[in-house]
Amino acid sequence: MSNTSYDTYRENVAGRADVEDTPELVAYYKELAQLKTGALWTVANKIEPWQPKSESVPVLWRYRALRDHVLRSVDLVTPEKAGRRVIYLNNPGRQDVSAAVGWLYSGLQVMHPGEAASAHAHSSSALRFIMEGRGAYTIVDGHKMTLNANDFVLTPNGTWHEHGVAADGTTCIWQDGLDIPLVNAMEAGFYAVHPDLQQAVTHPVDDMPAIWGGKGLRPHDGNWTKPYSPLYKYEWAPTYEALVRHSKVTDGSPFDGVLMHYVNPVTGGPVMPTIGASMQLLRPGEATRAHRHTGSFIYQVAKGSGYSVINGQRFDWTERDIFCVPSWAFHEHANASASDDAVLFCFNDLPVMHSLGLYREQALAENGGHQVVL
Amino acid sequence: MSNTSYDTYRENVAGRADVEDTPELVAYYKELAQLKTGALWTVANKIEPWQPKSESVPVLWRYRALRDHVLRSVDLVTPEKAGRRVIYLNNPGRQDVSAAVGWLYSGLQVMHPGEAASAHAHSSSALRFIMEGRGAYTIVDGHKMTLNANDFVLTPNGTWHEHGVAADGTTCIWQDGLDIPLVNAMEAGFYAVHPDLQQAVTHPVDDMPAIWGGKGLRPHDGNWTKPYSPLYKYEWAPTYEALVRHSKVTDGSPFDGVLMHYVNPVTGGPVMPTIGASMQLLRPGEATRAHRHTGSFIYQVAKGSGYSVINGQRFDWTERDIFCVPSWAFHEHANASASDDAVLFCFNDLPVMHSLGLYREQALAENGGHQVVL
Amino acid sequence: MSNTSYDTYRENVAGRADVEDTPELVAYYKELAQLKTGALWTVANKIEPWQPKSESVPVLWRYRALRDHVLRSVDLVTPEKAGRRVIYLNNPGRQDVSAAVGWLYSGLQVMHPGEAASAHAHSSSALRFIMEGRGAYTIVDGHKMTLNANDFVLTPNGTWHEHGVAADGTTCIWQDGLDIPLVNAMEAGFYAVHPDLQQAVTHPVDDMPAIWGGKGLRPHDGNWTKPYSPLYKYEWAPTYEALVRHSKVTDGSPFDGVLMHYVNPVTGGPVMPTIGASMQLLRPGEATRAHRHTGSFIYQVAKGSGYSVINGQRFDWTERDIFCVPSWAFHEHANASASDDAVLFCFNDLPVMHSLGLYREQALAENGGHQVVL
Amino acid sequence: MSNTSYDTYRENVAGRADVEDTPELVAYYKELAQLKTGALWTVANKIEPWQPKSESVPVLWRYRALRDHVLRSVDLVTPEKAGRRVIYLNNPGRQDVSAAVGWLYSGLQVMHPGEAASAHAHSSSALRFIMEGRGAYTIVDGHKMTLNANDFVLTPNGTWHEHGVAADGTTCIWQDGLDIPLVNAMEAGFYAVHPDLQQAVTHPVDDMPAIWGGKGLRPHDGNWTKPYSPLYKYEWAPTYEALVRHSKVTDGSPFDGVLMHYVNPVTGGPVMPTIGASMQLLRPGEATRAHRHTGSFIYQVAKGSGYSVINGQRFDWTERDIFCVPSWAFHEHANASASDDAVLFCFNDLPVMHSLGLYREQALAENGGHQVVL
Repeated sequence: MSNTSYDTYRENVAGRADVEDTPELVAYYKELAQLKTGALWTVANKIEPWQPKSESVPVLWRYRALRDHVLRSVDLVTPEKAGRRVIYLNNPGRQDVSAAVGWLYSGLQVMHPGEAASAHAHSSSALRFIMEGRGAYTIVDGHKMTLNANDFVLTPNGTWHEHGVAADGTTCIWQDGLDIPLVNAMEAGFYAVHPDLQQAVTHPVDDMPAIWGGKGLRPHDGNWTKPYSPLYKYEWAPTYEALVRHSKVTDGSPFDGVLMHYVNPVTGGPVMPTIGASMQLLRPGEATRAHRHTGSFIYQVAKGSGYSVINGQRFDWTERDIFCVPSWAFHEHANASASDDAVLFCFNDLPVMHSLGLYREQALAENGGHQVVL
Repeated sequence: MSNTSYDTYRENVAGRADVEDTPELVAYYKELAQLKTGALWTVANKIEPWQPKSESVPVLWRYRALRDHVLRSVDLVTPEKAGRRVIYLNNPGRQDVSAAVGWLYSGLQVMHPGEAASAHAHSSSALRFIMEGRGAYTIVDGHKMTLNANDFVLTPNGTWHEHGVAADGTTCIWQDGLDIPLVNAMEAGFYAVHPDLQQAVTHPVDDMPAIWGGKGLRPHDGNWTKPYSPLYKYEWAPTYEALVRHSKVTDGSPFDGVLMHYVNPVTGGPVMPTIGASMQLLRPGEATRAHRHTGSFIYQVAKGSGYSVINGQRFDWTERDIFCVPSWAFHEHANASASDDAVLFCFNDLPVMHSLGLYREQALAENGGHQVVL
Repeated sequence: MSNTSYDTYRENVAGRADVEDTPELVAYYKELAQLKTGALWTVANKIEPWQPKSESVPVLWRYRALRDHVLRSVDLVTPEKAGRRVIYLNNPGRQDVSAAVGWLYSGLQVMHPGEAASAHAHSSSALRFIMEGRGAYTIVDGHKMTLNANDFVLTPNGTWHEHGVAADGTTCIWQDGLDIPLVNAMEAGFYAVHPDLQQAVTHPVDDMPAIWGGKGLRPHDGNWTKPYSPLYKYEWAPTYEALVRHSKVTDGSPFDGVLMHYVNPVTGGPVMPTIGASMQLLRPGEATRAHRHTGSFIYQVAKGSGYSVINGQRFDWTERDIFCVPSWAFHEHANASASDDAVLFCFNDLPVMHSLGLYREQALAENGGHQVVL
Repeated sequence: MSNTSYDTYRENVAGRADVEDTPELVAYYKELAQLKTGALWTVANKIEPWQPKSESVPVLWRYRALRDHVLRSVDLVTPEKAGRRVIYLNNPGRQDVSAAVGWLYSGLQVMHPGEAASAHAHSSSALRFIMEGRGAYTIVDGHKMTLNANDFVLTPNGTWHEHGVAADGTTCIWQDGLDIPLVNAMEAGFYAVHPDLQQAVTHPVDDMPAIWGGKGLRPHDGNWTKPYSPLYKYEWAPTYEALVRHSKVTDGSPFDGVLMHYVNPVTGGPVMPTIGASMQLLRPGEATRAHRHTGSFIYQVAKGSGYSVINGQRFDWTERDIFCVPSWAFHEHANASASDDAVLFCFNDLPVMHSLGLYREQALAENGGHQVVL
């Protein structure tokens, strides 16, 4: 702290620090610094804010703007040199940690038919959400999952995993979601390249969704104690069907329409300890009310078009667009169609907020619950 | 104990009681009886057996033998007088507690189109498995579920519930499964008739399976903390589909083929605290090996035909037949068809065995794991 | 059911069975019996009672009446022949299952200095509460615990265990508490004699209470996943001290005074899955109000004297007396001393009631919450 | 990223990114930046390190150096202006977030007899460890706890709390420990000043330790579901006694001597969701072996003297000194006395590591498990 001023954060409020710099105090502060210490009252109001103020800004990334750049990476770099050809989303407020929002990383990855990335493992948790193409697959600890558009697949903390596209497939693009920034911040990041660069497929293809994907059913021989979901792949078709069926019997949430969380079927809890995911349906013409809560959220439009208002700023979106909602930002969503439903995929750090006891939520009270668009 | 002999249970084994009656001891025993006490060594070997010996006997109830009697009850008694027209399964070893096996009750209930039983609540937990007919329904705490053959529905401990058949349906027969004998044994049975005799349907029909029936999904607004599954109805079609899909990627259990347990999606645990349920598929020609375990089991043949060997006795079964396996009885199952699969529905007290830490299991070691049929 | 009458349980209440025997019906019932079935309406009101009616009766066993008989057993039988010299409490309503109340067994065991019982294991869970003598010990899976009056020790389901008295001790008497009747009823009882008849002490004496007995502390290397408490021994001194300290800051329960449950420190839950235990303090002159609940309870007076009213019957007790409260019996307790506190040890099947979802409780509304003594 | 170089993090290892800047690529990168995106391979090796490299450095803060400065703050600022008079520990690597190590804040607070801080609540979790003085107290949600040296008290997330010193006490100094940096990083920090500035004491003094502090006991009326320990205060005397007793029956951990974690007695888990705490005893002459693990740790010497080696650097400590161990730093501890034991209090973010699945541990293999001191 080379600053000559120590009283930047003063607040004239009972119970808050309000100490003016004096020569004597400044001398004292300098002595404290020598001892690798400081006076709390010089920073208390800074480090104990009245409420969160996110470093991240709301951003919408248009797929039609990004897609060409993603495809171009195939020509510009080889998989051998680049590892993976990924364009990552770089929130203007989080460039120091390469985050899309908060402590979440996201990128768009492209792969040509017949290509396969090398296998690795890391203490970050990851998910993939398929955007386009046929023939994509992911292998997790010897289990191979085939993937189609709007499917969502897990590659949890500590698993050997790799991605590829079948030789008879088409160019595939998907969204990666990881907690890399969080794991780095927690100073707990480990990385390993698979000794054989590729791992063997040691189980029948798509076995985990077959074994664990029963509706209200658990396999008798399924003795699963790992801290993440054994389901691995969550397919689009049954998810969408569940949302539609659900939408016919409930009003849904005033803030989110009909929203369902992807869960670990063994526990009913989140799919991984650090990343949650959900899919939500907005009925034709539905416009939700605004609320805000802690946690960082990345959305991808799985179906339809509409707009979201985030901290007073309107973002219009259509299929495959991606946008983020920072912590404690007011947000509301609207389906622009009067005839078709709109569906948003989302991943977030809600499990972290809940584990650490930090989740808080507040509805917008004013203006019928709708923000004034700036 | 009016017996003059107190040394019936002697065993000449180190660590076991082996005390012969003497005049002095008998006099002592009589004094103890006056004090509402006894000498442990006179009963120790009886109350601490080397292994369980069930009071129940294996029984197979043929549906074609029972069906006429079930239907006849409709002519013999009115719902108003009988409450419910049910023929219950009465295990020869458990007639004192009206149990089908162990502490489980089961009966076959019949209802004509347009009939409805009165609503009641009890501390027993119950399930219904639909055997035949169209238009059956169950109402649980205001939630109405429509039911078809091989569907399975819960009416848990403490819920208001009632059954009926739609006016445009057909005569319906279903199997009831309850823990009535257990709850009575635990001296915890309460019963109440609904003040209005019928309860109102206060939610959209089939809302609970729509809200909670997502595959790997949890409703956002679902804040369920009751000790039983909110899914209420488990439909046959997705269950059978899950078994078939599962059977393609695993060998299944050597003792049970491909077996899946019905679960509470909120916890991944059993559907109710006292009754578990499962569905298992035996592939064409599959004959499982024998094992035995604690807990009592009632099976209904949902599809196909075959046989089971229980404690050395062979029971041939076909669709809709019901049979029971007592605690610690060796049992194995075989599908008699070389072309079709066979499917067994089962309910049991496994959750009790697990909660109380009493589950034990043993494979038959001899004869390639198959019992010698007596 | 050799009875010629099938309409014993009729009730003229809407929603209950009320079917009169007719020759046609009796013929039908006999046909059903041939098929190992029955008509539910003939037994429904019996097996679905309005509320529990316990088979057990309230009993108080006076220690001064039992003590001589217990001591006499030492002269009458040898440990080799008797296994253990125990006088068990035989509730007049439960003699068929040798229970003290409900599904709980209890007995008074005596042992002379230098004696040791043989080691065994069983699927019943057991506890001992020390009544008198010096030098008693229990060994559980190689861990030896030394025991003094009012100490309480566990020998859980599946553990090798044995009891003895040090050569330099005195004759010891303790109360055994087990779930033998429950485990037999569940048809899950296994018993094994230790191959060496005595097991070796493989850990420092009293190590488990030293490792797990910290107040608000857990040992770093304590990785305990067994379903019972690793604390094994609960000593009287810190328990009494905790009750006294607790009694100074709370009013306690209107029904139980200051009551604390013994817990598994790893989970905060009951000490064993099938048996709970507690210690409660009644302040000088304290007389609690009456309530009733499901579950069976056995009390021993650890300190002081007073009386309990159980289903309208008054039982006066003093130190070392034992009494039982059957399920759903109203009960209230009073300390007869105006100057000293009274302390009751209790063990019960509350964990079973809670696991199975069968716990219910009701306060006595009339007469200021006090029963009229008959 | 105004840098002209994008290839800073290249690694020539199969499976890692190794792309050299070319004019074409740099142009591409600039286009990506316009779209608020970047190329993963330019940062992949930076954000996916092989193993953690902490931003924090090991520091030892000597109490005898800090004490005067802490006391001087009393003369320099008033409680009204400063809020609290605290000198916080400012790790050279974490000055941007005012952390002592990792995401943990710590400070030394001083208060004169008769003083009381104003009551507030925040979403940070806090603990206090008393260093010197008589008469300190903390009030948490109306529960007042009196505090002595080496006592440890909780003021969890969301509770109203305040500190003070009794008028007849002496000047008190204690260590504060909070997760302020973590909560800010998670963008979940809320702060509120109590409307009355002081809260009323609404329960008997020290009631929570009396109610919840039984050894292996739970209060009957204690229905606690909050995510933190109701014990609130952990006293030094029983903690030290437990360590000594424990040390007599086990060898302890090769890395930590005899270490016990403070727990929430309701669950057996950590005292708060984000901060764990422990106390460990090093026997006379004991020198532990080195290991490293994820998570950040702050130690205070509660008793005795000795040294710790952290990442090859030796730190000698004596009573009241404070030091920190950053994530993944090798560390070992030694008691310098041949006759007295040494005891270290520690608080840390282990619960976060465990909740998020990020805990990893590694023993030092070389040199008999001891670091070479640099």
